[in-house]
Amino acid sequence: MSENGSLRRGRPGYDQQGILDVAIAAFNEYGYDATSMGVLAERLGLSKSAIYHHFASKDEILDRALDTALSALERVVDETDAAGSRAADRLDRVLRGAVHVLVDQLPSVTLLLRVRGNTEVERRALGRRRAFDKRVTALVAEAQAEGTLRSDIDVRIVERLLFGMINSIVEWYRPGGEEDADRLADDVIAIALDGLRMPTSNRVEQLLG
Amino acid sequence: MSENGSLRRGRPGYDQQGILDVAIAAFNEYGYDATSMGVLAERLGLSKSAIYHHFASKDEILDRALDTALSALERVVDETDAAGSRAADRLDRVLRGAVHVLVDQLPSVTLLLRVRGNTEVERRALGRRRAFDKRVTALVAEAQAEGTLRSDIDVRIVERLLFGMINSIVEWYRPGGEEDADRLADDVIAIALDGLRMPTSNRVEQLLG
Repeated sequence: MSENGSLRRGRPGYDQQGILDVAIAAFNEYGYDATSMGVLAERLGLSKSAIYHHFASKDEILDRALDTALSALERVVDETDAAGSRAADRLDRVLRGAVHVLVDQLPSVTLLLRVRGNTEVERRALGRRRAFDKRVTALVAEAQAEGTLRSDIDVRIVERLLFGMINSIVEWYRPGGEEDADRLADDVIAIALDGLRMPTSNRVEQLLG
Repeated sequence: MSENGSLRRGRPGYDQQGILDVAIAAFNEYGYDATSMGVLAERLGLSKSAIYHHFASKDEILDRALDTALSALERVVDETDAAGSRAADRLDRVLRGAVHVLVDQLPSVTLLLRVRGNTEVERRALGRRRAFDKRVTALVAEAQAEGTLRSDIDVRIVERLLFGMINSIVEWYRPGGEEDADRLADDVIAIALDGLRMPTSNRVEQLLG
């Protein structure tokens, strides 16, 4: 008998993660405010008290859901910081890592991107998102200073446009589609760092000059 | 006395466009479903029947609001089609034009980007958005075929990532900020078409090779 109860007969059991997954899907479908604990209990086929056995409140479920996405994104920057190579290479790794987090944690990142700061839990999540953005912006600034990235665009605008592109993937990406995360990360890097335009000899001279 | 009534004394009058602007702001703030005609009337300081004098229904207000954004975007592609230059140059103009539409029509584009297809009006708007996306995708394909854009990325992915970047501007752009639309359009083109990375001589050889 497997530990997660997949061979258990009758009504499927839910561990904490299982409840979390169903809750995130419901929040994304109906909105957090419109999803009551009663609605959640119904979707899970559990009593409300069975949910309260795992989570103190709906707010705590949201907190855990947002933490899943934020921790994964923060880990990407932490690990890259430790790599210690050129800033442009570290940025390359952060962008690739972010695409992977987005694909692997699609539901919780989708939820994170919809947070508007209506509750204390949401405001804390927005604070962590801003801190993440700041670290990426600092990396862009470092790469501009070392001369590996063009320096004629404001670093904050660069960061916003890069993550605008990456975050938009949640709008259309569906698991099991044609593009896997590695391929999608390659595409993002190709556009963002190398550009779509084939260089003319003029352009190459201009860049080298 | 000016025609739009700006010199009229007492309670400000609203023409159709004035009602539309207030309605779009309310839809963006509270959501379309949560904004009743009663709420709109209160915000305008008008009776509901005064609004019905201009619009047959809330649905018609939404229709007009979405048409503002969609018509502006469609005009960008129409005008570029007529230009008849290389596909890569036309794409450049479409991307710049889209950034301008977004900045000039920020509230109605914001509303358009939130449409999920819950009503007939919304589904029609989504259909026009898809038609727009298809025309841009065809332009990317043409530019790949003429050899001016790199052809190792699926054209649909290119279109989605480009407009993911451009559309994300609604999340943070505020009129009167440091970046005007021309500068922002330059930034988008710089990243999307030329890329952020300064070329190494290796990279240049590889591109020229």
